[in-house]
Amino acid sequence: VTFAANGVVTLTSDFGWRDAYVGAIKGTIVSSAPDVRIHDLAHEIEPQNIWQGATVLRGACPLFPAGTIHLAVVDPGVGTTRAPIVLLAGRHAFVGPDNGIFSLVAEALGGIETAYRIEPAGPLAFLLPRDPCPTFQGRDVFAPVVAALASGRITPADLGPLHEPLPLISPVGVVNLSAGAVEGRVTQHDRFGNAITNIRARDLRALPSTALMARLGDDRSVVVARTYGDVPKGEPLALIGSEGFLEIAVREGSARERLGLSLGATVRIEPSTRAA
Amino acid sequence: VTFAANGVVTLTSDFGWRDAYVGAIKGTIVSSAPDVRIHDLAHEIEPQNIWQGATVLRGACPLFPAGTIHLAVVDPGVGTTRAPIVLLAGRHAFVGPDNGIFSLVAEALGGIETAYRIEPAGPLAFLLPRDPCPTFQGRDVFAPVVAALASGRITPADLGPLHEPLPLISPVGVVNLSAGAVEGRVTQHDRFGNAITNIRARDLRALPSTALMARLGDDRSVVVARTYGDVPKGEPLALIGSEGFLEIAVREGSARERLGLSLGATVRIEPSTRAA
Amino acid sequence: VTFAANGVVTLTSDFGWRDAYVGAIKGTIVSSAPDVRIHDLAHEIEPQNIWQGATVLRGACPLFPAGTIHLAVVDPGVGTTRAPIVLLAGRHAFVGPDNGIFSLVAEALGGIETAYRIEPAGPLAFLLPRDPCPTFQGRDVFAPVVAALASGRITPADLGPLHEPLPLISPVGVVNLSAGAVEGRVTQHDRFGNAITNIRARDLRALPSTALMARLGDDRSVVVARTYGDVPKGEPLALIGSEGFLEIAVREGSARERLGLSLGATVRIEPSTRAA
Repeated sequence: VTFAANGVVTLTSDFGWRDAYVGAIKGTIVSSAPDVRIHDLAHEIEPQNIWQGATVLRGACPLFPAGTIHLAVVDPGVGTTRAPIVLLAGRHAFVGPDNGIFSLVAEALGGIETAYRIEPAGPLAFLLPRDPCPTFQGRDVFAPVVAALASGRITPADLGPLHEPLPLISPVGVVNLSAGAVEGRVTQHDRFGNAITNIRARDLRALPSTALMARLGDDRSVVVARTYGDVPKGEPLALIGSEGFLEIAVREGSARERLGLSLGATVRIEPSTRAA
Repeated sequence: VTFAANGVVTLTSDFGWRDAYVGAIKGTIVSSAPDVRIHDLAHEIEPQNIWQGATVLRGACPLFPAGTIHLAVVDPGVGTTRAPIVLLAGRHAFVGPDNGIFSLVAEALGGIETAYRIEPAGPLAFLLPRDPCPTFQGRDVFAPVVAALASGRITPADLGPLHEPLPLISPVGVVNLSAGAVEGRVTQHDRFGNAITNIRARDLRALPSTALMARLGDDRSVVVARTYGDVPKGEPLALIGSEGFLEIAVREGSARERLGLSLGATVRIEPSTRAA
Repeated sequence: VTFAANGVVTLTSDFGWRDAYVGAIKGTIVSSAPDVRIHDLAHEIEPQNIWQGATVLRGACPLFPAGTIHLAVVDPGVGTTRAPIVLLAGRHAFVGPDNGIFSLVAEALGGIETAYRIEPAGPLAFLLPRDPCPTFQGRDVFAPVVAALASGRITPADLGPLHEPLPLISPVGVVNLSAGAVEGRVTQHDRFGNAITNIRARDLRALPSTALMARLGDDRSVVVARTYGDVPKGEPLALIGSEGFLEIAVREGSARERLGLSLGATVRIEPSTRAA
């Protein structure tokens, strides 16, 4: 096994900052691993939006050092038979529900190295509450597992049998490349109202033309530029965002409000007619 | 005194994450106790909702190790004559306003051991600002007290005279048990839209029947189940939540939106007519 | 140079808690400076509201100990030619965009001591990503600079040439003092709905009368009092807030909702006619 805990733990969830859930998880971890350093990544994920949680993990976790343990709870399947898992990728460990939430970050880290189904009745049993709450595994299963891994009392392989994690189904379908064009879809909006698509920088580099525009539906198009400074204030543009995906933005404004691009809206990148 | 600080501090408030209040408290603590580890529990408590703050403390603080200091500021009475207090329960210390916010967590920890009214003119005087702001005691009284307790420079008994804390009045009344039934009320909603009542798991165990249903007003009823997996997606159910209270939920949905249960709505648990 | 890092870092931004931005910055810092202690101050600043960010920094940062590094990202000019800077004031270091966001806190700390323009091509080059994203300097420039300063690998003067930071233009104009009166404007609202003005405590002390009232437009006035306890519950008042500015508040209520004072609304402090 190539995972060695470094004492750093990150938390990502849809728990928000108004209930006891985040604090209950922190208390559980601190109680059995008092020296870990816990970092909040995001707790205002839209309730039960696995895709949004997966993109947060992809954008943040690989920047932490090897040996970090990432706990993520966006879990519409809690209280059903979905498995609790630990997944190893790029010398990071991920703890949470088996619903695909770790698939994007695992891909970004070079692929899943191995994964285990957490077996509460195994060697872990004496670290868990005797009567775990079926609807709050974050507190009663995942947090004790994080603490046990962080303190080195247990190794990932001790947690249970090997497990094949579920893939994550994109909410909007895939990217299509045709001769001289790329077509994708809006997969999420960020807090600033940027409409982020599933079109990658490398998809654009595969196109023969470098002067490009983004078609939004039939009658609107915006310039593909490098950065906000390339257009006047208040004007829309398409650009490669901080994780390498094309996004539609408005300089010092909100593309979501200004252009009304809903989740799943089609974005087509073509050679610019102005440049032609 | 049975309280010995362990270097861990938690913060709970209705300050939100958009103003300077949370940072001002952290800076004050870090300046005089640089080695404490501070954990945010919840800062998006509804403004001045003492009950919501009290439930967050009850759900999170007991999971921290003994010796933790919990600062809580949900304080409609700031700038009046309400007392600032330190309360000890279960070898934890709680610092904040005397408005009942600590009553639920103290009960969960076995009851109040002792409490002191913070007397700014006493031995504490040289640790406080000379001209404290009457409307931000969180920064000018509570945070210096937390730092002084955490660093061991002062003990709880040094802070002022013994004090009898105010009780917390439930916003919705109490639970009634009749022959074969329990009637309670909705006391809060969480971020997921679950409607949490004041009916405890042990109230249900006192009933003769184990096949139960929850009546919501006159014409609606939902099944009492163990977990979400017991009903199809999108269906309502009643179940015991993570802190031992009955809640009305919708699997992968929001009971608040779907069933429109407002604060104080009556929930009556009866033998299931289907099972009869 | 009078700045010596103490291992404490604070974060302030308009990133919110629902995207990967906050976590990406934390991961970058932790990866190259694993021992720093990171404190979240505020991440729900209104998107691109520099004034609001500046007031958070003013209210929180000076309370941290000397040697703290404060990272702030509210940055409508990201992706344009605005400079990235490091600014020193009161033995604190501030890292972020040159858009005036540090001007209020620098003034509160006794003025700007010195400032440098961050030059990515200088000695810093080997600490930055080779291909920094032009729209996320928080991750690709500011966070590596924070880590390098915190770990002592680089000093502020190594970062680039001396720089004159931009001032911050008040969104609402200045305070006018006439004979026996002061006129200012509402510059922001906090989470509780308090309407905070640009009138300072010392402006009031310059008035001949001590019995004062606040005129809101033509036909409304509220008493100027010391604290909430001076008026009945639900009643409006004007008082000096926790940072020394006059604010219009409602005891246990929201002045924003109750009085409808919008940003820029005029507030005029005069001798009280009741007391005359």
